[in-house]
Amino acid sequence: MFNIKNTDPSTQARTGELKTAHGTAKTPFFMPVATKLTIKHVTPMELEQMGGQAVITNAYVTYLKPGMELIKEVGGVHRLMNFNRTIFSDSGGFQMLSESFLKEVSDKGVSFHDPFANRAHFLKPEDVIRIEREMGSDVAMCLDHVPAVKSKEEDIAEAVRRTHVWAERCKKYHDAHDSKNIYGKRQLLFGIAQGGLSKELREKSAKAIDALDFDGLAIGGLCIGESKEEMFKAAKWQLPHLSKEKPRYLMGVGSPEDIIEAVSLGVDCFDSIYPTQNARHCHVFTRKGTIKLDRGRYSKDMSPLDPDCDCYVCKNFSRAYLHHLSRSFEWTHHRYLSYHNVYWVVKFLERIRAAIDKGEFEEFRKEFNERYVKRKISAKR
Amino acid sequence: MFNIKNTDPSTQARTGELKTAHGTAKTPFFMPVATKLTIKHVTPMELEQMGGQAVITNAYVTYLKPGMELIKEVGGVHRLMNFNRTIFSDSGGFQMLSESFLKEVSDKGVSFHDPFANRAHFLKPEDVIRIEREMGSDVAMCLDHVPAVKSKEEDIAEAVRRTHVWAERCKKYHDAHDSKNIYGKRQLLFGIAQGGLSKELREKSAKAIDALDFDGLAIGGLCIGESKEEMFKAAKWQLPHLSKEKPRYLMGVGSPEDIIEAVSLGVDCFDSIYPTQNARHCHVFTRKGTIKLDRGRYSKDMSPLDPDCDCYVCKNFSRAYLHHLSRSFEWTHHRYLSYHNVYWVVKFLERIRAAIDKGEFEEFRKEFNERYVKRKISAKR
Repeated sequence: MFNIKNTDPSTQARTGELKTAHGTAKTPFFMPVATKLTIKHVTPMELEQMGGQAVITNAYVTYLKPGMELIKEVGGVHRLMNFNRTIFSDSGGFQMLSESFLKEVSDKGVSFHDPFANRAHFLKPEDVIRIEREMGSDVAMCLDHVPAVKSKEEDIAEAVRRTHVWAERCKKYHDAHDSKNIYGKRQLLFGIAQGGLSKELREKSAKAIDALDFDGLAIGGLCIGESKEEMFKAAKWQLPHLSKEKPRYLMGVGSPEDIIEAVSLGVDCFDSIYPTQNARHCHVFTRKGTIKLDRGRYSKDMSPLDPDCDCYVCKNFSRAYLHHLSRSFEWTHHRYLSYHNVYWVVKFLERIRAAIDKGEFEEFRKEFNERYVKRKISAKR
Repeated sequence: MFNIKNTDPSTQARTGELKTAHGTAKTPFFMPVATKLTIKHVTPMELEQMGGQAVITNAYVTYLKPGMELIKEVGGVHRLMNFNRTIFSDSGGFQMLSESFLKEVSDKGVSFHDPFANRAHFLKPEDVIRIEREMGSDVAMCLDHVPAVKSKEEDIAEAVRRTHVWAERCKKYHDAHDSKNIYGKRQLLFGIAQGGLSKELREKSAKAIDALDFDGLAIGGLCIGESKEEMFKAAKWQLPHLSKEKPRYLMGVGSPEDIIEAVSLGVDCFDSIYPTQNARHCHVFTRKGTIKLDRGRYSKDMSPLDPDCDCYVCKNFSRAYLHHLSRSFEWTHHRYLSYHNVYWVVKFLERIRAAIDKGEFEEFRKEFNERYVKRKISAKR
């Protein structure tokens, strides 16, 4: 299910292979987010062609819209979206952070508002796994209780306790269905550790989740407004307690600079809206860091977005043209910049894997950190 | 420059070839609109791959943004947009209909507001041709005075008179530059006939424009709010007076049902925002007419948008999925529906050409009119 191929001698970085019912994803990998069953402005064919190996969808949002009846009738989300590689499904835990979604939470489960229909839905942890089985995702995530990062310590402790109770129930329900989705294909189940910004709770949660013997282990509840330093502290508290031989997933990360740092700590999976959201705000990834393309300085710049990138957009259009489209509020600029940013991150992970395999990860990271100008923002999904 | 290949025995329909500095466009053809130097949601590569032969840009809008300095520095709009087939440039006459653009018009020229910079620009007919030469378009359109379709007869008459004065000046200026754009490539110049909904003025204008010996002849000032019946009446008054051996262009048309009707009258070129604008409003072309995809009845419809279409979207996604994306306000639905509608129209024109060449146009049209359910709207660009 998960094999480690090469381990970097001087960091915790490693390459490996995660085998799912829809092929093998080389780790470390990055997943674009397809909460509503589409990546924003990028097609599944484009993602496959650029080498993207996986996307992450969302159980609760899918349950609301388009609803499970359609999903089951089509035969799962792969068919509906026409994406034939690995699909993860997040549980809906993240949606608890949203006031427009969360109504009430107890050990029994979570009560969500349905903002589309002005009604409420009560979901037990077992319901969430049932939905994920019906989605036919390759990797299901447990329902976790995600508290706001600045919550009181006692509330975080309570969320951690509840997350563990739910994790056990998710695992039990999943095991009872032979770890298969309703289409008879093997479905992996990842546990999620929580703990806010407390060392004690992070360690406790990592150990508890690790003990439940999931197929993979996720670090959750981060990238929701805390600083990058806090985010990395929390991840570092947990990683030593998450089995090395299992795939480890840092949810919500992120930026190129955070990805490479997390890879050095031994993280294998990433997901974030970072590339597509940045694209819509005209932040474009380049070899030397992000540029803000709608600034006047690019209005006559005939070079491609990133001279080192060989994507369709970089091969065919100038910064000046794309600047013009952004200033003209033309939708194609969202499309072009989203494509480029996702492509850029996919290729970045390819380069990271190659560097680890060649035993050159430290040099690669050093060179990257020297030339790539980091954006001065806190971690945020 | 323009050769007629086959003429339909029972209608005025014909196929031909329009040779421009960027290849040969088989007529009749349809041009998507790229006013701001991009089609909405469709890339130039996609248009080329689906068999699209031409697009139409806009001189006045390009002059405002991105401005001629950039255009000249890049070497023209083909290079900036990276579209290597025929590019038409409309003059800006159409923008006179817009209160946010038009300031004042006299025989000397037109004074436009610049809504981006809160200033005004005065453009003589010669200025417009200069801009089109700098754009490097393959086919330049004369500056015409486009009056609102419901204007008083005397105002239409005045606009017709002014359009003729300007047409002469455009032609003279263009001839003085050897009918070449500033990049040394041959540029065709099309005249535009006006005349509102007056038979007398339409005939008069057609004769006057025809007499100036342009490379092609356009029927302008239509599809701006009049009924379809009025639009076709006006076109029918003018077509007999526009030289048969020249390419004839009905500006702003349009819908599949209007295109096939106009082809039967001997029209060779079309442009319209119809396919892309309809896509954004979830109106999707199918063999049997348009469907409104965001209606609930499509929420579980597993068939493709048009079972007879072999475009990327029809081959890969169901109506149910695309319905879901539209109901979720996901941008990809604009992209998929725009792609499909443009593809559909490009293939529709291919089928029309094939039918004419085989001498089967009347049957083709009859069959089309029987099955294609027309939308109940008046003509509109």
